[in-house]
Amino acid sequence: MSPDPSDAPVDMAPRAAHMADTADPPSTPKNTRAVAARRKPLAHDPTAPGTTADSGFDPHVPDIDYGVLDSLVGYAIRRAQIRIYEDFVASLAQWQITPPRFSALVIVSRNPQLKLTDLARILGIARSGAVLLVDALEEMNLVARRPAPGDRRAYSLVLTPTGKRTLAAAKQAVIAHDAHVASALTAPEQATLKALLGRLAPPRAQ
Amino acid sequence: MSPDPSDAPVDMAPRAAHMADTADPPSTPKNTRAVAARRKPLAHDPTAPGTTADSGFDPHVPDIDYGVLDSLVGYAIRRAQIRIYEDFVASLAQWQITPPRFSALVIVSRNPQLKLTDLARILGIARSGAVLLVDALEEMNLVARRPAPGDRRAYSLVLTPTGKRTLAAAKQAVIAHDAHVASALTAPEQATLKALLGRLAPPRAQ
Repeated sequence: MSPDPSDAPVDMAPRAAHMADTADPPSTPKNTRAVAARRKPLAHDPTAPGTTADSGFDPHVPDIDYGVLDSLVGYAIRRAQIRIYEDFVASLAQWQITPPRFSALVIVSRNPQLKLTDLARILGIARSGAVLLVDALEEMNLVARRPAPGDRRAYSLVLTPTGKRTLAAAKQAVIAHDAHVASALTAPEQATLKALLGRLAPPRAQ
Repeated sequence: MSPDPSDAPVDMAPRAAHMADTADPPSTPKNTRAVAARRKPLAHDPTAPGTTADSGFDPHVPDIDYGVLDSLVGYAIRRAQIRIYEDFVASLAQWQITPPRFSALVIVSRNPQLKLTDLARILGIARSGAVLLVDALEEMNLVARRPAPGDRRAYSLVLTPTGKRTLAAAKQAVIAHDAHVASALTAPEQATLKALLGRLAPPRAQ
């Protein structure tokens, strides 16, 4: 999170009904910094979780046979992710900040001299995806590229003043969202959940 | 999972290095049932998890300050999902079956008379996303549309014989993948993990 103590109001944008759980689609124009870009609704991603009709996602529809899916740890994780996604998006809709955008803002705010390739590696996305993500954040006037010290071909990512203010406010919204998500679990249960998730195995060598 | 006992070999496809964790992109041609379609590599999605350079995703890069992200239950889930995604994709690469494709095949196989809107609701995706997903599965000759009894405008989804054989084989690969993912956890720990995930709160009313 940002150490920036500012809590000044941030620029508002019309609420997007649903936002993509990925970086922006390839149609995002690059380096268009018009203020208008901040106000346009996000492109609709029909495959993003939580975009069902108008009600919340029911992770276990009655009378449906889920077969092997019910036995899989991986599907339990997927189901949980879909379930909490909608609340995250609603919590940050006023800033048009999706989960990957939020993660990127936090990482940039906490790590000086961060390069785009670092960000991709940290978030677990392809470099091309990180380019789209940073382009969008730059259009929203939240992130800027600065020449990297000692490397003429690279640049470092920094938050703009608007980015710092927006992150400070969005961070509070995310903390409230996360508290809601885990509100049925005790603190030790939350710790257990995170510890168990952290022990899932990495990919096998192919 | 499919009750189909067949374990006959299924059609092979060149291994896609990385697959999208969503249904197919909108560029997927509709209703093209050419066999060649089964063999083309999947479109690359730069924002899909697990598509980093050439090594596995490190969910916690040393010397990086994750700030508030480290305290969020939601980010722990996201991190776990990215971590296991790559192994899932590698496990099913020979069939070009992504996680949503696998889920769709299982749900269709277990639930007769399933309509497209049902599938969207069950998987927690938009109807337009389900259309793309079913189109892709139809192109791969795994799923077919059949007239729905009692509703001239609708149709039911069924697995084709190839779909049944493919699902039977893919199901075994997914079970092995999931066992690998959870291999560091005891059976009671796995049960605890699933139970805790199931207690995360649904979205708040907006």
